[in-house]
Amino acid sequence: MSTKATFYHAGCGVCVDAEQQFAESLDTTKYDVEIVHLGEAPSRLAEAEAAGVKSVPAFVIGGQPYHINFGASLDALK
Amino acid sequence: MSTKATFYHAGCGVCVDAEQQFAESLDTTKYDVEIVHLGEAPSRLAEAEAAGVKSVPAFVIGGQPYHINFGASLDALK
Repeated sequence: MSTKATFYHAGCGVCVDAEQQFAESLDTTKYDVEIVHLGEAPSRLAEAEAAGVKSVPAFVIGGQPYHINFGASLDALK
Repeated sequence: MSTKATFYHAGCGVCVDAEQQFAESLDTTKYDVEIVHLGEAPSRLAEAEAAGVKSVPAFVIGGQPYHINFGASLDALK
């Protein structure tokens, strides 16, 4: 069974780069990847924050946040 | 042709977690992943630093550094 991996981003340059290098490059037999653009889906901000996401781009895998470099803080997207 | 992706770590908890979630989960048809323990291979510190790595765990892909969360600064490993 594949694990859910949610990639949160905001369309920034750092985000797009991380999306190409990681979100589109994970083993799909291991992960079920969902890509969420928080600028377009602000209703998802609360779930990202609840999982511990402080900035984008970031993954949430198994409930744990993984921040990749720094594009924008979550506060800046509210 | 697969792209070289080097994962630098130092055996810390944050590092081991990132290794399992990312370094062991990338699409191996896309990336040729090398895992480098900087505590055991301090001679590799210079190349990591030259690529812009500031802390571990981090990947270098296509010459660009990608820091995943924060385990330890590179300075702390010297």
